[in-house]
Amino acid sequence: MLRSRLLASSGSVTRSFHSLNRLRNVAKVANVSSAEYDKIYTPRVGSYAQLDTFQRRHLGPSTTNVSDMLKTMGYKDLDLFISQVIPPQVLSKRALKLEAPVKGYTEQEMLKCLHEVANKNKWNVKNFIGKGYYGTILPPVIQRNLLECPEWYTSYTPYQPEISQGRLEALLNFQTVISDLTGLPVANASLLDEGTAAGESMLLSFNAAKKKRTKFIIDKRLHPQTKSVLRTRAAPFGIELVEIDTCDTEAAKSLLSDKQVFGGLVQYPGTDGSITPGETMKLIADTLHANKALFSVASDLMALTLLKPPSEFGADIVLGSSQRFGVPFGYGGPHAAFFAVVEKLNRKIPGRIVGVSKDRLGKPALRLALQTREQHIKRDKATSNICTAQALLANIAGSYCVYHGPQGLKNIANRIYGFTSVLAEKIQKESVHSLINESWFDTLTVKLADGVNSNDILQKAFNDYSINLFAESDNIVSISLDETVTQEDLISLCKLFGVSSKLPESLPCFPDALLRKDSILSNDVFNKHHSETAMLRYLHRLQSRDLSLANSMIPLGSCTMKLNATVEMMPITWPQFANIHPFQPADQVEGYRELIGSLENDLANITGFDAVSLQPNSGAQGEYSGLRVIRSYLESQGQGHRNICLIPVSAHGTNPASAAMCGLKVIPVDCLSDGSLDLKDLKAKAEKYQDTLAAIMITYPSTYGLFGPGVKDAINIVHENGGQVYLDGANMNAQVGLTSPGDLGADVCHLNLHKTFSIPHGGGGPGVGPICVRSHLAPYLPGHDVAKMITDIGSADSISSVSSAPYGSASILPISYAYIKMMGSEGLPFSSVIAMLNANYMMNRLKSHYDILFVNDRSNIKHCGHEFIIDLRAFKTKGVEAIDVAKRLQDYGFHAPTLAFPVPGTLMVEPTESENLDELDRFVEAMIAIRREIDLYITGDARGQVLKNAPHSLEDLITSEDWQTRGYTREEAAYPLGYLKYNKFWPPVSRLDDTYGDLNLMCTCPSVKEIAEDTNDL
Amino acid sequence: MLRSRLLASSGSVTRSFHSLNRLRNVAKVANVSSAEYDKIYTPRVGSYAQLDTFQRRHLGPSTTNVSDMLKTMGYKDLDLFISQVIPPQVLSKRALKLEAPVKGYTEQEMLKCLHEVANKNKWNVKNFIGKGYYGTILPPVIQRNLLECPEWYTSYTPYQPEISQGRLEALLNFQTVISDLTGLPVANASLLDEGTAAGESMLLSFNAAKKKRTKFIIDKRLHPQTKSVLRTRAAPFGIELVEIDTCDTEAAKSLLSDKQVFGGLVQYPGTDGSITPGETMKLIADTLHANKALFSVASDLMALTLLKPPSEFGADIVLGSSQRFGVPFGYGGPHAAFFAVVEKLNRKIPGRIVGVSKDRLGKPALRLALQTREQHIKRDKATSNICTAQALLANIAGSYCVYHGPQGLKNIANRIYGFTSVLAEKIQKESVHSLINESWFDTLTVKLADGVNSNDILQKAFNDYSINLFAESDNIVSISLDETVTQEDLISLCKLFGVSSKLPESLPCFPDALLRKDSILSNDVFNKHHSETAMLRYLHRLQSRDLSLANSMIPLGSCTMKLNATVEMMPITWPQFANIHPFQPADQVEGYRELIGSLENDLANITGFDAVSLQPNSGAQGEYSGLRVIRSYLESQGQGHRNICLIPVSAHGTNPASAAMCGLKVIPVDCLSDGSLDLKDLKAKAEKYQDTLAAIMITYPSTYGLFGPGVKDAINIVHENGGQVYLDGANMNAQVGLTSPGDLGADVCHLNLHKTFSIPHGGGGPGVGPICVRSHLAPYLPGHDVAKMITDIGSADSISSVSSAPYGSASILPISYAYIKMMGSEGLPFSSVIAMLNANYMMNRLKSHYDILFVNDRSNIKHCGHEFIIDLRAFKTKGVEAIDVAKRLQDYGFHAPTLAFPVPGTLMVEPTESENLDELDRFVEAMIAIRREIDLYITGDARGQVLKNAPHSLEDLITSEDWQTRGYTREEAAYPLGYLKYNKFWPPVSRLDDTYGDLNLMCTCPSVKEIAEDTNDL
Repeated sequence: MLRSRLLASSGSVTRSFHSLNRLRNVAKVANVSSAEYDKIYTPRVGSYAQLDTFQRRHLGPSTTNVSDMLKTMGYKDLDLFISQVIPPQVLSKRALKLEAPVKGYTEQEMLKCLHEVANKNKWNVKNFIGKGYYGTILPPVIQRNLLECPEWYTSYTPYQPEISQGRLEALLNFQTVISDLTGLPVANASLLDEGTAAGESMLLSFNAAKKKRTKFIIDKRLHPQTKSVLRTRAAPFGIELVEIDTCDTEAAKSLLSDKQVFGGLVQYPGTDGSITPGETMKLIADTLHANKALFSVASDLMALTLLKPPSEFGADIVLGSSQRFGVPFGYGGPHAAFFAVVEKLNRKIPGRIVGVSKDRLGKPALRLALQTREQHIKRDKATSNICTAQALLANIAGSYCVYHGPQGLKNIANRIYGFTSVLAEKIQKESVHSLINESWFDTLTVKLADGVNSNDILQKAFNDYSINLFAESDNIVSISLDETVTQEDLISLCKLFGVSSKLPESLPCFPDALLRKDSILSNDVFNKHHSETAMLRYLHRLQSRDLSLANSMIPLGSCTMKLNATVEMMPITWPQFANIHPFQPADQVEGYRELIGSLENDLANITGFDAVSLQPNSGAQGEYSGLRVIRSYLESQGQGHRNICLIPVSAHGTNPASAAMCGLKVIPVDCLSDGSLDLKDLKAKAEKYQDTLAAIMITYPSTYGLFGPGVKDAINIVHENGGQVYLDGANMNAQVGLTSPGDLGADVCHLNLHKTFSIPHGGGGPGVGPICVRSHLAPYLPGHDVAKMITDIGSADSISSVSSAPYGSASILPISYAYIKMMGSEGLPFSSVIAMLNANYMMNRLKSHYDILFVNDRSNIKHCGHEFIIDLRAFKTKGVEAIDVAKRLQDYGFHAPTLAFPVPGTLMVEPTESENLDELDRFVEAMIAIRREIDLYITGDARGQVLKNAPHSLEDLITSEDWQTRGYTREEAAYPLGYLKYNKFWPPVSRLDDTYGDLNLMCTCPSVKEIAEDTNDL
Repeated sequence: MLRSRLLASSGSVTRSFHSLNRLRNVAKVANVSSAEYDKIYTPRVGSYAQLDTFQRRHLGPSTTNVSDMLKTMGYKDLDLFISQVIPPQVLSKRALKLEAPVKGYTEQEMLKCLHEVANKNKWNVKNFIGKGYYGTILPPVIQRNLLECPEWYTSYTPYQPEISQGRLEALLNFQTVISDLTGLPVANASLLDEGTAAGESMLLSFNAAKKKRTKFIIDKRLHPQTKSVLRTRAAPFGIELVEIDTCDTEAAKSLLSDKQVFGGLVQYPGTDGSITPGETMKLIADTLHANKALFSVASDLMALTLLKPPSEFGADIVLGSSQRFGVPFGYGGPHAAFFAVVEKLNRKIPGRIVGVSKDRLGKPALRLALQTREQHIKRDKATSNICTAQALLANIAGSYCVYHGPQGLKNIANRIYGFTSVLAEKIQKESVHSLINESWFDTLTVKLADGVNSNDILQKAFNDYSINLFAESDNIVSISLDETVTQEDLISLCKLFGVSSKLPESLPCFPDALLRKDSILSNDVFNKHHSETAMLRYLHRLQSRDLSLANSMIPLGSCTMKLNATVEMMPITWPQFANIHPFQPADQVEGYRELIGSLENDLANITGFDAVSLQPNSGAQGEYSGLRVIRSYLESQGQGHRNICLIPVSAHGTNPASAAMCGLKVIPVDCLSDGSLDLKDLKAKAEKYQDTLAAIMITYPSTYGLFGPGVKDAINIVHENGGQVYLDGANMNAQVGLTSPGDLGADVCHLNLHKTFSIPHGGGGPGVGPICVRSHLAPYLPGHDVAKMITDIGSADSISSVSSAPYGSASILPISYAYIKMMGSEGLPFSSVIAMLNANYMMNRLKSHYDILFVNDRSNIKHCGHEFIIDLRAFKTKGVEAIDVAKRLQDYGFHAPTLAFPVPGTLMVEPTESENLDELDRFVEAMIAIRREIDLYITGDARGQVLKNAPHSLEDLITSEDWQTRGYTREEAAYPLGYLKYNKFWPPVSRLDDTYGDLNLMCTCPSVKEIAEDTNDL
């Protein structure tokens, strides 16, 4: 983290917050005129520089387009346009000063630079470090046709289920795997990592207790980083973590029986490798249940393919990481955590759940289930603030199981067990060392003989055998074997521990006493795609059922879907970045550290702040971390009692949910009818709570897409009343190079790298939510107990870990790194400028057809920021709902804009800078055509029914049904505009029946019988 | 080439043909029992070996499937089944003995091995070697979404146009680029390389001459390898190549006026870099035309974006390579050559042409035009033997132009020119060396000062600057700059030539006098997809209009479409393989040389031969090379007069076409009614021509898919009558590990790596057609004039080059290399065995529904080889044609099997080993359903009309038309079987109108006006 650099006297510190503050005053005005755009867009003819620039590939409109668009709207120049959109008091005079060349790298230069950085990591090693991260083989067919496939990684969260059936099916496969392996009936479609999943289990148990209780029992054999995250999560609620040793059953039983206990969490197998016996598990479950507390188990999916499932012993919740099912280490993430619960907790489970329902024609179809639990509905009463899932990674893990099938998985697990057992036997019988754990699946903890030091063993393993182990202490090391282990590795380990390398003839089998006896993954999908050809076709079929950025614009207000450039995505699957364990020693990960350091510097400069933490692995995690940092700071100032968080009513649902998780009390602040913050109300409330005010959370530009002029006043009001200012950076993509949270006077902000900095949506995740802070907050940024962070000082004040891995989702950071470096200081502001130009152009073309909410009206030209809201509420009384428009857009080949957020009954459109004029016009024309259909409906013309039946799947269109009765023709349904005959994405199902699905909750793959009852041939 | 190893006393020779002959006698019987299959298919549980094997991912049916399939057919075991399919006298007793582990590498081991080999190439250099190969930047969006995309690389040649509209459109873009840049109206969709394109221009000119003429004028400034290929091609026809110096116009004019001259070929710009002045070009054209001879120009597409096009000076044919439009060096290939002609030659142009036509509903649609010119129709009277095109590479080149647009291309060309000019000026004015060429686009030829040796300069360039140049002679070097050149490179070159590195302010522009004034690439498609987002969508849209192996089985008899595994495909885009110039010195390409040497050894072992040449870059080229080798051998034996080639009537059309190109006279040999060769007829003809018999060409198993028992007799007959035996290896995929051309007694065979050895079809190419020969033919294998081949000895006897590059399409050889190494000696035979099992299973399921042609009938079980022929001729008189069945299969989501080859009115089905039982059954059920539809048609039931209207595009189905009149329902048309509702590829157009297209030939992109006339919105 940059923070560390700031505090350290390291020679590599090139910029401190002092110099940054100086820069703010002297720097020239960021120049975003049309002439400047021409310079970055038009190739540099006659110059020796590389001709092609990344900017002209990333940005949609050409110079000519820009001048045409400006003309349409009545502006002479881009900078004049921007000066109208952004109030003068908000516009910053500071130019960006990033580490890359101001003009940015070309794609070729970027690849060269990325290769150089990547090669500084020690990747060609075997990482038998374990602790929740294991070597795995990503099958090449899945690598190429899922992870490296834009159709998969550029799709959005499946909120529009009709055009998301492919990834929903893949996620349902994941849930089925989790449900089968844990033995619990309801699983979600992934959480962020094992540590936060443990945190969710603790809070679920905490909230489930009828009367307030304060103790949570934890297994001493939890992974250390899980304990650390639990500590962070427990603090705001005053929860006390009580460690038990499951071997000491009597002591454990007595601790579990304490009436203050609301739940307990056991690791199975434990971090030391041992497997808690079934009778002990049962005892813990029974004791907790007798105490009306919930029993959670952190487990390992690979082990569970063989091991008796926690459900057999009475677990209420089972959680863990699915990383080792095909997802590379990636220096700690992103990986999908899993979370499964017993039936009675199915409405309390955090995160997204995919469920089976039916479409309008009665055909089975998938969609997100039980959304009413989520924070965008329940706000501070939500089950969790979780929003981002690890969808892309869950899809890899699910597909890994589809490809291997139940027997394939068991074979892999058996082989791992066999290798481990051979090594265990040898260490026990032949070595001078001793084994600490008496049972194991894949992990051995070895107490070294007197005089042997852990570090010596680790050094020897690395130097002589290119193997990394884990040092538990000075004289204890652990070894976790995995799918990638070879006979050669085993021989190396034998030599390392000084035992003979003569191996038994064959590997032992998993002991029958521990073996699960039920059948797993018996569903068809896990038993028919085992050849590469079959798997290729299955993945292709799924992706062809999904609309992604490869098809058309996805103009989602508040959730940008901009270009995820190929060059940015390429490094993800390079082994130099993929094959790095998060706990590899610092001197083995210099490439990552250089990249992270540089990205932190650049993000600090962009946000106008002084220090950055890349640990939070989603935007909501960022919010949580930012607020926790504020609270810690306040505590250090003797202001620990401050617990009021002001939040405007327009805020995204994660804001209040995050505040609640930090133990803050949420007080809403009104907005004016023009959408801007009601400063009067704010002032009144800030003053009312001046003794207890902790913070305000503001989104800027607001969730309405507006640059309110009063933002600095609002910030001052809060500061004057003793609060800190949290600026939600969700809309940072409209600020880059034009203004910044730091320039506005805020204290902390989080960023959504997937939004502003080009990380793809992955069909619902991953995300990265770094936080950027002013220097006084820097000491409180998240730290890590296990991994040495870039410079580990000041961690005494740290809020401890918010994620399992030191740098969260490190392996996708090269995306944002490359995006920033290729856009350069000169190009980056144009991402914001063109995003706003595109939005305003569309808004201007649509404003005579629809009411637009909350547009500003300076100098007689209406304008919005980078997004705008189409108000459809007036049609509701006449029978047309916003959802009808959203679904009808699918017939035009488009993903609907954001529906019902931030205002119910509206659509919020955000085109991003990557869309070109053709695409903007195509969308505008679709909306205008729909407006005509709305009129038909309102006037009672039968043709208007086309809105109600939308979207029209092929099965709806290709029937013998007499369409005369519909009032509109098949062509009007399918091809309302001419381009659709050449270019149309077809929704594979008709409109979903949400109610049916929630009433008949089903969130694992349907069995053949169930399908047969519903349809002839699915 | 292995040949060289055989003849050299190199220490690395591990196996000679002597030891091979010994092996043949002592080796054990290849074991292909069900138990053996179980061993390679079932993971090695309990063993220390890697668990997952490639074989079980490559091969479709599981062990259980295999035993079920055998049971259905009445066999007890796989080896018993094979012993029925293959006659005992044909089955070899020799087990494969390949270089890899017998069990084959796992995918992970293979990737490791490939990385090690790749890293032995010196790839991190700038290759300014030129000579037709130039550095280029493959835009990452095209790399990922075309070259690395299975949907693009696994599609077949677009013979079924309705399901090939995407790649046809991409190829039409390519043709439009060629046509625009050359200024000639008709271009084909690519030839194999520049050398063979020059050969085609020579033969086209030769055949166009009304009376036989024998002289072909060539520019002394042709690339050396082009001259070499021309020499090879000229010999069989007795054509004399006469070199002219275009600078000496008087001498040139007199040579051109010779009445024996039938054509001339000028390089523009020349290989030395100079640009022949327009007046000289015009003079050459006029002189040739006055002499009724044709004028061909070899040119450079990048230069032509600026340079006046050859059409302005009267060129009849313009050809060259499109490599530098985004296609990496790849050690020489594959790259797409282009070939454009004047209007009057449009029916003489070789290769495939994409043309615009209409579908049944009148919608514009694309298909291959003028197919009647091609060898599969015209056989030995064809315009060329060319069959494979470089479709995938042409699509990259075309897409490169779509992405850059006309101005982008001109900018690139101008920058190359600018850099070259700065260097030229400096060398001329500041250095001790002198410039030979007075004009240039990208290439400078430098005469070094006395005492300076070329080798010293080359060594210094490589050692000090990582730059490669080309040595024309001891004291002349040439430098060709390209798109990748940087200022740093220019400074390095300045230093190298001892001039100051102070550069002028800006780069000079291309001189107005040489500048073309017409507009290029004005078509819409080249002017709207310039952002990455737009390009991604365009490529995605195109691929979604094509059926590929990612959708379903493509059961093409004679053209296998088996799995192209991801691991095999991955190395293609590694810079270690991609960034290698074919003329890099041998010590810089050790990785390629190791890989090629190993592949040659393995192919020799598999075919039972002694030496291999990987130079031919297509199957037809292989045929040509093999026959040329035979002729050279015969000449060396004083048998040069032997010029008769026997060819069975069942042979593929390339056979007679290749024979004709070698100056051989084709005598057809009859087949018996059971499909086997008529040995009586063969004997009679062999004896009749015993004094002039050169060779026989046999395909084995025959093109009917049968293992004729008399093949050894046939071979003996030919040998006894003084002929050599050429075994067409097209069906080698049924022989591997079971028998071989060498074991059968043949002298030479070619292989289709794209068929037997997993190279993908690429939508019509590339291919690789190595030839394998017995030792007496080895000295005559192709050599190379420029590049040092693995060991260059014996080239005195060589037939010279058949391709421009020493190892043809070297960059795709890693595919076959990896395929062989992963299958291993034990696994490889099962590719053949399972291919035959799959074919026989399908045939057995279909035989009660259709007549099957030419099946064998041993032991009362009918069986075929690896493919079988469904005879539809009986239905023809009742109005149902084979094409109706082929088109109707599209409605079932399948690509039709091979239509009308080898027997008109039939479909030949070849499922390959990669298809699993589910997919075989799905196809069989589709065919059975169609059989019912045929009955309906025949009995006059209106529902049978569904066959005639097939395929049903969405526009056909989604209309307001009253379907009552059709006699069948929309559902019957679209969803005749249940699976189609979940999994169906939709043909984007209806049945093509071929006649319309050929009558109204149009083979460039339609203009907006033309489209507007045809449709509202294309």
